[in-house]
Amino acid sequence: VISLGIGDVTQPLAPAVIEAMHQAVDELASAETFRGYGPEHGHDFLRRAIVEHDYRDRGIEIDEEEVFVSDGAKSDTANFQELFAKECRVAVCDPVYPVYVDSNVIAGRTGTLNEDGRWSHVTYLPCTAENNFTPELPKESVDLIYLCYPNNPTGTVLPKEELKKWVDFAISTGAILLYDSAYEAYIRDESIPHSIYEIPNARRCAIEFRSYSKTAGFTGVRCGYTIVPKELSQLNHLWERRQSTKFNGASYISQRAASAIYTEAGRKQVKETIDRYMENALLLRTELSNLGIRVYGGEHAPYLWVQCPTGQSSWECFEQLLHRCALVSTPGSGFGPSGEGFIRLTAFGRLDDTKEAIERIKKNF
Amino acid sequence: VISLGIGDVTQPLAPAVIEAMHQAVDELASAETFRGYGPEHGHDFLRRAIVEHDYRDRGIEIDEEEVFVSDGAKSDTANFQELFAKECRVAVCDPVYPVYVDSNVIAGRTGTLNEDGRWSHVTYLPCTAENNFTPELPKESVDLIYLCYPNNPTGTVLPKEELKKWVDFAISTGAILLYDSAYEAYIRDESIPHSIYEIPNARRCAIEFRSYSKTAGFTGVRCGYTIVPKELSQLNHLWERRQSTKFNGASYISQRAASAIYTEAGRKQVKETIDRYMENALLLRTELSNLGIRVYGGEHAPYLWVQCPTGQSSWECFEQLLHRCALVSTPGSGFGPSGEGFIRLTAFGRLDDTKEAIERIKKNF
Repeated sequence: VISLGIGDVTQPLAPAVIEAMHQAVDELASAETFRGYGPEHGHDFLRRAIVEHDYRDRGIEIDEEEVFVSDGAKSDTANFQELFAKECRVAVCDPVYPVYVDSNVIAGRTGTLNEDGRWSHVTYLPCTAENNFTPELPKESVDLIYLCYPNNPTGTVLPKEELKKWVDFAISTGAILLYDSAYEAYIRDESIPHSIYEIPNARRCAIEFRSYSKTAGFTGVRCGYTIVPKELSQLNHLWERRQSTKFNGASYISQRAASAIYTEAGRKQVKETIDRYMENALLLRTELSNLGIRVYGGEHAPYLWVQCPTGQSSWECFEQLLHRCALVSTPGSGFGPSGEGFIRLTAFGRLDDTKEAIERIKKNF
Repeated sequence: VISLGIGDVTQPLAPAVIEAMHQAVDELASAETFRGYGPEHGHDFLRRAIVEHDYRDRGIEIDEEEVFVSDGAKSDTANFQELFAKECRVAVCDPVYPVYVDSNVIAGRTGTLNEDGRWSHVTYLPCTAENNFTPELPKESVDLIYLCYPNNPTGTVLPKEELKKWVDFAISTGAILLYDSAYEAYIRDESIPHSIYEIPNARRCAIEFRSYSKTAGFTGVRCGYTIVPKELSQLNHLWERRQSTKFNGASYISQRAASAIYTEAGRKQVKETIDRYMENALLLRTELSNLGIRVYGGEHAPYLWVQCPTGQSSWECFEQLLHRCALVSTPGSGFGPSGEGFIRLTAFGRLDDTKEAIERIKKNF
């Protein structure tokens, strides 16, 4: 059985990262270099590298005190809603990364579950083939808007002018954008924003979540970070308070590992791995398209959003792929009602597995 | 300036832990042995070691599915209250580890702050020299009771018969005990319980939090765990759900590090470090007592709870120690109103620093 289902990576860590981790471990072996509790918001060496390389190199000014290092973007995207009142109304794309919705469900913010699988107090923004996976601005008043670009699960992206609409909308309505750019490293076209802060005025309305999981294969290492601009001073202060009260910093070794991806060698190595995954994505896109299957995403993201070829439901297609091709996919309906009729495939498999998966699909569909 | 203030360790990690971490890093360097996302509740190898060594070796049966590995006890003790209604009433010892109170403040569960530094909707259980630091059962109805033994900040312990009172009270009133045993490795007298589950029926009412931070110097490595017994099936299910929704597992390297402390070499090395810290504690206890200063705790815990010698306030004493002795302590009043008139010293300093601190106190008080 080949898995192109869960979004976990398969390639080993970059040699520069491995070296940095060994060094960090050795530091903890001697009293002279031992490190105990670090700052809850992350070590200075990592905050500085983030500011310099993820932002300044792209022409964006971020202050070190706006960077909050954590054990991963899942924790941060799930926890950030804690800063808001229970009455706040949440807007999410449909389909959507389930953590945005589920963390609000746990917080009691989402009302009741309707028969169509939607929560009564959540605003869903359908992203479908019909609207080119471009969500429309909500017609109702919302307080928190989760956006994830490059998108999980559809693998699609938004150009600057579309993101500008959201920033302008958020500023004019007082809403907060919670922008998850965990997959920015997969963008191949430099006109597509890596950061929401490439959009004018975004510092007045947007929080940005970043992850090393997909950028550098840190799914087991655990490190990510969140940017809370000082223009949103209350949120910056509250998040600092939340993190220092309920979190004790990311592992020192994980933080040293993260900082190694900003070295010259680290950047090169990390890019090579991403290039490998994107070869898989290109192969999947091309070959499935040649079979007449409609495939979206996968150009600037490690995810392909595949329309079920014979109009099956997501689960029917999942089962056919499993039984006929011994291939695990992710049913699109698990990401929300608008995901019905799609499956998600990932480019994180090994090349030979990906090729074999394509052969099996060719034979059986 | 010598710091005997913050509860951070100073000794390096055990060689067995260092070796395990290097091995884990090497596993991540090759595609064949690479590990990505682990189970949110922790890897089986660690859950198994916990069940076997922290519990079965002490005659306690815990199921692996009752063990939830995390990035540390601070996260877990702060997050666990999320499972309860906002109306629940919380009881804490006074003085207390601030995270228990502050996480409930953030959740909006504590009412208003009174002038005496207490929250209106929190039940405080004074632990003072007068009652031998033994909290009395609350007279009012409470839902969540935080207990930490060996205690932070007072360094005192409770014998089995006192803990039995709390278990019986919790069962008879339907309250939940949130039992933090982060310092159990410092217990020297085997009649003192390491786990709340040494008390009959505790599985029906108690959650237990454990940390590797003080047991094995993991303050920078980040790993701990929480036990949620199946007798509390709803809480077990809700915590599993909470963790799988809002957390993505502790670092693989940290989990391998934790499992190394259960090897024969690891246990021996970890015990040696704890013995070193406890020598500091004994020295501080003995020498300060010889000066006529009242010292509590420090016999089964790395903390000493020191009465301000001339009846000063906590902050006055803190400032005198800082200016006269260049010694950083922690003012007891920071842990709650009943901490006034005390300072906390820790045994985590290096031996020569601890000796020098004692000399300075001898000269200046």
